Amino acid sequence: MARTDIARRVYNHAWKLDPIIRSLLDTDFYKLLMLQMIWGLYRDVNVTFSLINRTRSVKLADTIDEEELRAQLNHARTLRFSKKEMIWLAGNTFYGRKQIFTPDFLHWLEDFQLPDYDLKRKDGQYILTFDGPWTHTSMWEIPALAIVNELRSRAAMKGQGRFALDILYARAKAKMWSKVERLQKLPDIKISDFGTRRRHSFLWQRWCVEALKEGIGASLTGTSNVLLAMDNDLEALGTNAHELPMVVAALANTDDELRAAPYQIMQDWNRYYGGNLLIALPDAFGTAAFLRNAPEWVADWTGFRPDSAPPIEGGERIIEWWKSRGKDPREKLLIFSDALDVDTIETTYRHFDGRVRMSFGWGTNLTNDFAGCAPREIKELDAISVVCKVTHVNGKPAVKLSDNPEKATGEPKEIQRYLDFFGNVDRILNPVRV
Amino acid sequence: MARTDIARRVYNHAWKLDPIIRSLLDTDFYKLLMLQMIWGLYRDVNVTFSLINRTRSVKLADTIDEEELRAQLNHARTLRFSKKEMIWLAGNTFYGRKQIFTPDFLHWLEDFQLPDYDLKRKDGQYILTFDGPWTHTSMWEIPALAIVNELRSRAAMKGQGRFALDILYARAKAKMWSKVERLQKLPDIKISDFGTRRRHSFLWQRWCVEALKEGIGASLTGTSNVLLAMDNDLEALGTNAHELPMVVAALANTDDELRAAPYQIMQDWNRYYGGNLLIALPDAFGTAAFLRNAPEWVADWTGFRPDSAPPIEGGERIIEWWKSRGKDPREKLLIFSDALDVDTIETTYRHFDGRVRMSFGWGTNLTNDFAGCAPREIKELDAISVVCKVTHVNGKPAVKLSDNPEKATGEPKEIQRYLDFFGNVDRILNPVRV
Repeated sequence: MARTDIARRVYNHAWKLDPIIRSLLDTDFYKLLMLQMIWGLYRDVNVTFSLINRTRSVKLADTIDEEELRAQLNHARTLRFSKKEMIWLAGNTFYGRKQIFTPDFLHWLEDFQLPDYDLKRKDGQYILTFDGPWTHTSMWEIPALAIVNELRSRAAMKGQGRFALDILYARAKAKMWSKVERLQKLPDIKISDFGTRRRHSFLWQRWCVEALKEGIGASLTGTSNVLLAMDNDLEALGTNAHELPMVVAALANTDDELRAAPYQIMQDWNRYYGGNLLIALPDAFGTAAFLRNAPEWVADWTGFRPDSAPPIEGGERIIEWWKSRGKDPREKLLIFSDALDVDTIETTYRHFDGRVRMSFGWGTNLTNDFAGCAPREIKELDAISVVCKVTHVNGKPAVKLSDNPEKATGEPKEIQRYLDFFGNVDRILNPVRV
Repeated sequence: MARTDIARRVYNHAWKLDPIIRSLLDTDFYKLLMLQMIWGLYRDVNVTFSLINRTRSVKLADTIDEEELRAQLNHARTLRFSKKEMIWLAGNTFYGRKQIFTPDFLHWLEDFQLPDYDLKRKDGQYILTFDGPWTHTSMWEIPALAIVNELRSRAAMKGQGRFALDILYARAKAKMWSKVERLQKLPDIKISDFGTRRRHSFLWQRWCVEALKEGIGASLTGTSNVLLAMDNDLEALGTNAHELPMVVAALANTDDELRAAPYQIMQDWNRYYGGNLLIALPDAFGTAAFLRNAPEWVADWTGFRPDSAPPIEGGERIIEWWKSRGKDPREKLLIFSDALDVDTIETTYRHFDGRVRMSFGWGTNLTNDFAGCAPREIKELDAISVVCKVTHVNGKPAVKLSDNPEKATGEPKEIQRYLDFFGNVDRILNPVRV
């Protein structure tokens, strides 16, 4: 019997592109939640997102072919939400709530298309910017990052023989499964996949999510990836991101408005969503300032996501603050999502077990950990710290401080203005690996 | 685009059998070398081969479905050497020698077919015997073992989910590659695949041989599997086996004939083959007796294959004997082939390095090591010690003593007669795992 499907082989000969993004749902769920609010309340705001490679030693423009990058970005722009996807968004229950997306918003979404991009090269890096209405540019963050990261993986593996690749993925699977086996030992742990943006590839992320589903069962609370959630009957997870306070802060005209920015956006959020979706992200301009200035009602929110402080210090600080506001931390939720791997997850889980509800949003080290897997080391497979951040709002510069000075973004002068304003207390310098 | 090859899928629906043995070349090379000599010199001898499962705790008849076993054995009986295979046997160079097989023998081989078998069950074991001319029954040894072992693997994996199997093979590949990386550190080591009979499956053996070829390059001297040698342009390796002295010993009518049996067959061998094919297998009735009674010319042979003594003790004994006969061991070859794994290979290699030429015939632990690979342990994947041995010659019982009493085969009374005759010196009891 012939073993080769000739038609498929011939089709493959003529392949022009192996598209990385094949669905607009191949993005993080919080983008859709935020988008609905942005569309509702900030429709006229113009926001520029820019790709920022914090791993300067990796020259992306020397690694990734510009034509390939353009072809992938262009392909993503051809995508529309399919009928099946729209029906699922309308009919599915998210965070226990039906019809979380309004018919008006969904109607608008039907025609959604990713807006144009601007791509230049400078000093071995790409200057990739998305400028336009916030309602559109916001949606580039995840696909742009996924495209850049997967093109980088593909470049790293170009020229590898079939056998070397076979070993590479066999070892990566074995490595991933040894992590699963460690997690199986932690009873009642809650873990979700937050690894879309930094993934090695779409297929690899899908495999990792399937591995978690198979291996830890109900301890996998879901995935941030909407497409994978839909295809695997998993919960789509995620709430809000730094872009919300960053944009509102950049729009502030007075000190009072700047001070109020992080809370104003939370009040907006509260109008749209409730319950488990009320997760505060305290570190946009430093957690210390956020807690110090926080109105009483912030303590009523379900939880916090400390995203740039070391998990134990960051968590302890928030628990202490809850107690100071008369709240019982055991009824509260901490979502850890910064630079997690099994070691950190284990340590953090054991540290807080019984004292607070916890959930772990596992990202880069879930979906892009190939260290030691290639038969001959491929350094270019190591994940890099690349982000896609708000840089301008209606032409004005935007800033993120975070609890780790290494993760700050913005123009130096503006960063200094924010530091002077919010203070620089308790910020802890940590090397940013991923 | 449709992702499923519908024709293939429909064909698969109707599959009756996934044949384990698909070519008469899927056997060990030494069987063909021995067969040419048997056909030339012992054409009229009748020999019974029997399956012997030394791992009594594993009840093969309760594990392997009898109908499946019969179907596989029957399928193997339908095979003939193909034209391509015959041309390769005639045209290829083996051990540096052209036309090692005579045209007469190859002409006879064209019509070769595996003879009938007899299959019964007793106490949870199969009684599988092959009775008939030695020129035919000898060829059942390897396919019968490969069939039984692969059916056992298949039974062990039945009911495993697709994901569990994915992890199983990913881990087995990672494990195998970590062995390759250890072997890469041993300069000038010579290793060959001797793993056909005990393999997990044909496809797995093929992968392991490809892994060795990729990973240790010229250090892989070849494979005992003729089909894999042909398909991968590797050397086909192997010389002779215990069945030769066992048959000649069983044919002996006097004490003198019995004492001479191991050497008579070596003189036969010498008429057929030379050079690197002159490898003595000293342990059929105990190495001590073999060396004690050996004629002077035995020391002229190229090497020894100590197959049941611990490698270091066994090797030292033979080196000492060579020296006592005025030979320089550095010009001699030791082939180790009993129960090897990377640990033993490393230790033995370092022990003898520079003192003797060495080669390692790596078997079961190369092609059937799945310990710790399944997500949930599958004890049934552990290799067992099953062999297919000469039990009768022209109706008279045959015996193998070996250097390890655990590996002796034959009727107890006959074993005792051989022990009384050849002595029980230096035989070392070792548990037989594989």
